[in-house]
Amino acid sequence: MDNRFNYEIAARDGRARAGIFHTPHGDLLTPLFAPVGTQATVKSVTPAQLKELHASLILANTYHLYLRPGDELIANLGGLHTFMHWDRPILTDSGGFQVFSLADNRKIDPDGVTFKSHIDGSTHRITPEKSIAIQENLGADIIMAFDECGSPYDFAKNEAAMERTHAWATRCVNAKTRSDQALFGIIQGGIYPQLRQRSAEYLTALDLPGYAIGGLSVGETKNETLSTLELVDTWLPEDKPRYLMGVGSPEDLITGVQRGVDIFDCVLPTRLARHHAAITRTGRLNLANAKYKSEKSPIDASCACYTCMNFSSAYIRHLILAQEILGATLLTIHNLYVLLSLMYDIRQAIIEGHFDQFAADFMKHWESAS
Amino acid sequence: MDNRFNYEIAARDGRARAGIFHTPHGDLLTPLFAPVGTQATVKSVTPAQLKELHASLILANTYHLYLRPGDELIANLGGLHTFMHWDRPILTDSGGFQVFSLADNRKIDPDGVTFKSHIDGSTHRITPEKSIAIQENLGADIIMAFDECGSPYDFAKNEAAMERTHAWATRCVNAKTRSDQALFGIIQGGIYPQLRQRSAEYLTALDLPGYAIGGLSVGETKNETLSTLELVDTWLPEDKPRYLMGVGSPEDLITGVQRGVDIFDCVLPTRLARHHAAITRTGRLNLANAKYKSEKSPIDASCACYTCMNFSSAYIRHLILAQEILGATLLTIHNLYVLLSLMYDIRQAIIEGHFDQFAADFMKHWESAS
Repeated sequence: MDNRFNYEIAARDGRARAGIFHTPHGDLLTPLFAPVGTQATVKSVTPAQLKELHASLILANTYHLYLRPGDELIANLGGLHTFMHWDRPILTDSGGFQVFSLADNRKIDPDGVTFKSHIDGSTHRITPEKSIAIQENLGADIIMAFDECGSPYDFAKNEAAMERTHAWATRCVNAKTRSDQALFGIIQGGIYPQLRQRSAEYLTALDLPGYAIGGLSVGETKNETLSTLELVDTWLPEDKPRYLMGVGSPEDLITGVQRGVDIFDCVLPTRLARHHAAITRTGRLNLANAKYKSEKSPIDASCACYTCMNFSSAYIRHLILAQEILGATLLTIHNLYVLLSLMYDIRQAIIEGHFDQFAADFMKHWESAS
Repeated sequence: MDNRFNYEIAARDGRARAGIFHTPHGDLLTPLFAPVGTQATVKSVTPAQLKELHASLILANTYHLYLRPGDELIANLGGLHTFMHWDRPILTDSGGFQVFSLADNRKIDPDGVTFKSHIDGSTHRITPEKSIAIQENLGADIIMAFDECGSPYDFAKNEAAMERTHAWATRCVNAKTRSDQALFGIIQGGIYPQLRQRSAEYLTALDLPGYAIGGLSVGETKNETLSTLELVDTWLPEDKPRYLMGVGSPEDLITGVQRGVDIFDCVLPTRLARHHAAITRTGRLNLANAKYKSEKSPIDASCACYTCMNFSSAYIRHLILAQEILGATLLTIHNLYVLLSLMYDIRQAIIEGHFDQFAADFMKHWESAS
């Protein structure tokens, strides 16, 4: 394993960790939230605005970029960092999850997946080797092993998906040629402790620079998610970052960090913004609501983001009703700021040794509002 | 007239003028191009991005803001500057042009215009007094007299529209109560010199702080536009700014300045951006074109805007095909930069006394490319 992907733990508080993950495009301070830039853009903001928000890691989607504009094109243009003008770390997913959720006519076999593009119906095939080749063309700092995600309540299906995920993870390790990318494995096994343990042990034996916990937030209950996270935490090596995929509501970030998670990503803040919703530390607001018609206050008077420092809720509501792009942009800036600053505060609380109190205070406000 | 709206001429070169127009929200350096923020937002950019572009004056539309969110609401929220977070000068039009071009079932009479909203079909009436009341609620630095625009080739209709425009201008002067807004009159008369002269004389007698040239770019030939501008220039007072409404292609800015125009506005740069087109000093480019598929160069390698400094044409084409908002934002930033920096260069050329040479060079490149 390349030294440049060392993970150092700076502080612990219970199972929560504050760390530094070194990458070729700079150090990542964990725990962190990664905004999602599906098609090589975090929707409705510029890279300059993302930097003002102090975003560090962003995620881009292999499935989307493979189909359009094509990973070879991006490689010829200098790779994803140059293409989308982001000189900080990038993570790409393996394409697996989106092949299974977005593509048409997908057929899985032991070697890979054949599917039709959701854009133009053309036929494609992704294998573990192909996923790595695409991700090497894209050139992200963190790349993901090609995996299959089981359905939460079917033991046999979960076991089969997990076995396949293991075989594919080994093929990804063998296919990888670039030393400037960290390949993370993905632990599967649904809600079944014995499967999760086998998965953690198999992937840990591969000595990868980081591990993702897959197959969660796909239909299971919140208690099942949390108990799975707690178990997996005990089986994973301490000196590697843990990444919980597709999770990003404020309370899920808190409960994830409490269970040892270091990295999160989610479309929630950007998607909600395009659907008129603001995230705050006490809940969600729908800015299209008539009650904001004459509201002089910003979304959150205690928020220091560009949107809240400069614009009334009435103005944002006007932009939404008038279908102006600026409405989505201002809400995106606000929502990302809330999650990114929450992670900053979480990290500080861990370093200062009062994360449990911070989490308890947060949950008290969160629940009282909902 | 209020002293705060003095216009000083800093330099002349032929009929072109470089001036300073004082307003309550700062000095405007002329000639200038005003980006249009129809619904209290310049589409797809933030006020912070507009400031980075060194935009000075922006225009907002009375008709749109009266209908939604309502001028009284904006007044209660502190006026348009506060509402849209723009602390530099703003100009509002009178609403007349858009009542005639956008509203349904409009009926004009000597007292005003009755029409149905294009948003919800509700019935409304705007008179000169009402237009001023709306514009006083909005609180722009420059407000416009309510006018009727004739059709270019009908003498009788133009004469009638002009007479009505004059009567309405006098009513606007009498209706005005705020001293911190400059009311500009609008010269009508179509392509008919005798009408234009009567209009210039009538409005000049009102001793307004500025004059707009209306009823151009509405179907007449380019030669007719230019000869009308040349004539009107000779009849207008030297010490007042002249505003050519709705004009904004690079060659029209050059030919307008050559004929004494100081202020321009147009939706062209922002609208073209949302339709995939980039403006350059040598013509227009369609960034959706397949020839940009693998193009590493920016839109214009000689351009210093945020877009051209950081993004390839291939990336912008990708954003367009993927229907990403960032495509419109990056093209808007580029297009506004091209027009705003062109006006800056025009002003410098006037001050340095070589504007004719600058204009000739510009036209040579412009025509060779088209």
